[in-house]
Amino acid sequence: MTDVHAGAPAGVLGGTAAEAPSDTAADAPHTPLTTTPSDEDYRLGTESFTDERRTAVLARLEEHLDQHRARMLGYQVNLSLDGHTSLGRFLRYHINNVGDPFVDSHFSMHSRWLERAVLEHYARLWHAPLPEDPTRPRNEDAWGYVLSMGSTEGNLYALWNARDYLDGNALVRDEISGDASCRTTYIRAQHPEDNPNAYAPVAFFSQETHYSHIKAMRVLDIPTFYDLGGSLYPDQCPIDVSGTGTRTYNGWPLGGVPTTGGDEGPGTVDIDALVPLVEFFAAKGHPVLVNFNVGSVFKGAYDDVATACERLRPVFERYGLVDRAVRFDPDDPDRVSVRNGYWVHVDGALGGAYAPYLEKARDAGLTGSAPPVFDFRIPEVSSIVTSGHKYPGAPVPTGIFLSRAGSKLRPPSDPAVVSSPDSTFAGSRSGFASLAMWNHLAQLGEEEQMRQAVEALRVAEYTAGRLRELSAALAERGEPWAEDGIEVGHGDHALSVWFQQPRAEITAKYTLACVPLDLGGVRHDYSHVYVMPHVTRELVDELVDELYRPGAFDRSAEEGAVRPPLPGQS
Amino acid sequence: MTDVHAGAPAGVLGGTAAEAPSDTAADAPHTPLTTTPSDEDYRLGTESFTDERRTAVLARLEEHLDQHRARMLGYQVNLSLDGHTSLGRFLRYHINNVGDPFVDSHFSMHSRWLERAVLEHYARLWHAPLPEDPTRPRNEDAWGYVLSMGSTEGNLYALWNARDYLDGNALVRDEISGDASCRTTYIRAQHPEDNPNAYAPVAFFSQETHYSHIKAMRVLDIPTFYDLGGSLYPDQCPIDVSGTGTRTYNGWPLGGVPTTGGDEGPGTVDIDALVPLVEFFAAKGHPVLVNFNVGSVFKGAYDDVATACERLRPVFERYGLVDRAVRFDPDDPDRVSVRNGYWVHVDGALGGAYAPYLEKARDAGLTGSAPPVFDFRIPEVSSIVTSGHKYPGAPVPTGIFLSRAGSKLRPPSDPAVVSSPDSTFAGSRSGFASLAMWNHLAQLGEEEQMRQAVEALRVAEYTAGRLRELSAALAERGEPWAEDGIEVGHGDHALSVWFQQPRAEITAKYTLACVPLDLGGVRHDYSHVYVMPHVTRELVDELVDELYRPGAFDRSAEEGAVRPPLPGQS
Repeated sequence: MTDVHAGAPAGVLGGTAAEAPSDTAADAPHTPLTTTPSDEDYRLGTESFTDERRTAVLARLEEHLDQHRARMLGYQVNLSLDGHTSLGRFLRYHINNVGDPFVDSHFSMHSRWLERAVLEHYARLWHAPLPEDPTRPRNEDAWGYVLSMGSTEGNLYALWNARDYLDGNALVRDEISGDASCRTTYIRAQHPEDNPNAYAPVAFFSQETHYSHIKAMRVLDIPTFYDLGGSLYPDQCPIDVSGTGTRTYNGWPLGGVPTTGGDEGPGTVDIDALVPLVEFFAAKGHPVLVNFNVGSVFKGAYDDVATACERLRPVFERYGLVDRAVRFDPDDPDRVSVRNGYWVHVDGALGGAYAPYLEKARDAGLTGSAPPVFDFRIPEVSSIVTSGHKYPGAPVPTGIFLSRAGSKLRPPSDPAVVSSPDSTFAGSRSGFASLAMWNHLAQLGEEEQMRQAVEALRVAEYTAGRLRELSAALAERGEPWAEDGIEVGHGDHALSVWFQQPRAEITAKYTLACVPLDLGGVRHDYSHVYVMPHVTRELVDELVDELYRPGAFDRSAEEGAVRPPLPGQS
Repeated sequence: MTDVHAGAPAGVLGGTAAEAPSDTAADAPHTPLTTTPSDEDYRLGTESFTDERRTAVLARLEEHLDQHRARMLGYQVNLSLDGHTSLGRFLRYHINNVGDPFVDSHFSMHSRWLERAVLEHYARLWHAPLPEDPTRPRNEDAWGYVLSMGSTEGNLYALWNARDYLDGNALVRDEISGDASCRTTYIRAQHPEDNPNAYAPVAFFSQETHYSHIKAMRVLDIPTFYDLGGSLYPDQCPIDVSGTGTRTYNGWPLGGVPTTGGDEGPGTVDIDALVPLVEFFAAKGHPVLVNFNVGSVFKGAYDDVATACERLRPVFERYGLVDRAVRFDPDDPDRVSVRNGYWVHVDGALGGAYAPYLEKARDAGLTGSAPPVFDFRIPEVSSIVTSGHKYPGAPVPTGIFLSRAGSKLRPPSDPAVVSSPDSTFAGSRSGFASLAMWNHLAQLGEEEQMRQAVEALRVAEYTAGRLRELSAALAERGEPWAEDGIEVGHGDHALSVWFQQPRAEITAKYTLACVPLDLGGVRHDYSHVYVMPHVTRELVDELVDELYRPGAFDRSAEEGAVRPPLPGQS
């Protein structure tokens, strides 16, 4: 990161403009925002819209979208999507992949061939074995589907599967006796007399974890380690988080496993905290569900899944969580299912799709290093999810769920009406999403994928470099609200770069996300830039120019704004 | 239904062709199916596809979809979607309505104005009051969102909300004390000493209910009345289903509340069975969750929600399920939430969007009768879901969830990163789906909607009439495998018409769904036609002609086919 500024276009910090940035420097490429759409424009009544009026208000929406697309810097979605407009002709169909991707249904208007191609692509990318015969996969083979609702769907499905795998329900590979199969609710395995917790899973995830996991825990009613710890084992937490500013519940860290270096660190899970927390509950006889992040929501951080699993492996072995015998069938107590007492899920919503290309690029000598390995090469990894609309990009929410066929739950029903097992989370499944994913991937060879991922990382590093220079320049200038600089942060290989939140006009103009963090009990307001493939150095320069203008960080007129603490105050 | 055949084009039964249908009669409009797409066509490798090859395999998919669209008769999706191709230009954006529809987020590329217009449209259609100030709705006002994954998402969300409303969690309107709000898992209300079941909801739904409800019960771990009855109250079932062929579990009917007249009836829930079943569990102190179907999956049946709720109302009152006091906050036991001990959900996946127009058409004198009322005019109705891609039709799975604001659960988190509450099921939410729904509805005035719904019903009645004539003609001819006719069924106002399953070539050609039913312990294989707006009388005539050809029902060469029982056998 030493020479990231080399070759950068002369910005306010590098040229004469630095001392007196002109209005035109920042404004030249900026079309002023016209009237935004309003609820009134689109209100439906008993009369239909005339074609003229409908066309006009749709054009207004298009204009709004165009204006924001041109400067979208704050969210992890790739907006280089021009290749998708050619798919417009497929909008005259309803394409539906209802049921299992590998079992064709009676519903003929599907795109399963494309869905399977996309799944195979990600299975190879994540090093999962492909089945020789997809209708009869081996336990370790890949099974999954293309998501219709994005990673939230994938995470919900993964954690549902995990919960029921760990609490002793029947899997596809388990033979079950007649009666048990037709019940709606579960016939859960009875715990052995010496361990009442044998089928009571506990969830572990870091404080950088996406908010959808909190929702999933509620929907699925899976207790987290801090809820269970705080209520059943008050003040017995095996790690000490006092003095770190972390909120606690009877000594247990609320919100998840601490991250390395806390809120000021890169956002990766602190393995030295994770391992004793897992061991605490494993020792009490609980099965464990561990979530890792690859490209976390705020900092774009990569948990070191490989190292964490190496450290967790002896814990799993010590407490009998490897290949334990589950007696899941109350009608036949001799029937045994051998499976693990842990489930490792990787939420690769952002990073799952490009981090493998950074690894390939490193191996090809195109870049010096890559994020840690997270995929099915790690024996403990049970499931991986990524968001298609984040990376490589898609017009509709979509994504990939992949797991191992041997840990697949028996679907609740096999509806004759579609003649394909109801083995996914959705009923109707978007065939258009698979088409969009396929069409995009078909245009990107491996070379191009590597090049694109490396370039995004280079631009992210360039952004971090420019913002750090800006921070120093603002501190030197004694800029109000930025006397101490703007707290720029950027983790290794991350596409996110965060810094002190600027004025509302600027966050709106560049669609910057805004997140307040507690740092040692003091609230700090941050924004972040997400460098996706559509983000150029020129756009970053424009933002930096804008942020250098006097008053860019002065939020004194904004309700609820927090003045950053001066040196020595926090 | 007496004159449904009046004005029908001369088909095989009405003209000279009846005695010797020529090959050309059925084949003339039928382009032979060419090679279907294969997995090989779309396999992705390390090299990108050339534009030429990509275009060619996409054209193959298009050809496949075109061929099947021309004859799609078996599923409840409207394929009159040509108006959507003009939306192709919006595929170059990723439009995302992340968060709450009524609270704009930092993510600027959204279509919430259109989403709100669509929600208002359905709120009016379903007679839910609209809030004067959407940011401060009254308890009875409508709140909801446009779905990204179809009705399965809506049903999951509704039943999740129902579970947590009934088992005593905090609602948006409940003030909660500081600590309870930051826990991930629930702080559930403690049951009163005299009623251990006070916060243990039980689910009721009919045997015609969509298979996604079974999945939702598993995900949410809500017990059904037959699981709980069969395991806790063996042989105490208050209704007698012996002799009806219904499978039972210790005397309780597996699969749901019986329907009127059983498998041979129209598919509507048997209210005389529902009421005593609900009363049995209400008397044991349980809160109850009742699901009704409006346009059920196989028979397109309309449960009589209004009458059922009238019958259930005194039961709810008798057992203290109206306005009960819930003490949900363990940190403040004096804090009370007054709410009902029941939740009535309407799965209007198919019927929710057009049944109201049949009612309007009846009131306008365009048709003689309409399905029963199911909407928010019934005070007990808590939530309604419909599928946008079924009716009015959409290229991607979508739909509508609406409930009453006063029963809305407190969202698990209010993520600063998007600055809009995480109050829906999905994280990323398809802004394109709202755009597609809006664009379709904007082109349909109320007149046109009424006309379209009445016409679909007329064509369904025409189909039932023609198939009944066919049945008689086949029986008269002594057609092998159809000596007893073809068991045509059609319920009042239903868009589904079912009959004995024909040969596989025919079910494939017309994309007919195939469903085996148990009738008095004997398996019968059925297919159904779903008359959606794209289905014409001409296409129905073509199918009837094809079904009249000798051997059309002869499945003796098909593996697993069941020969229909001859008269007196079943």
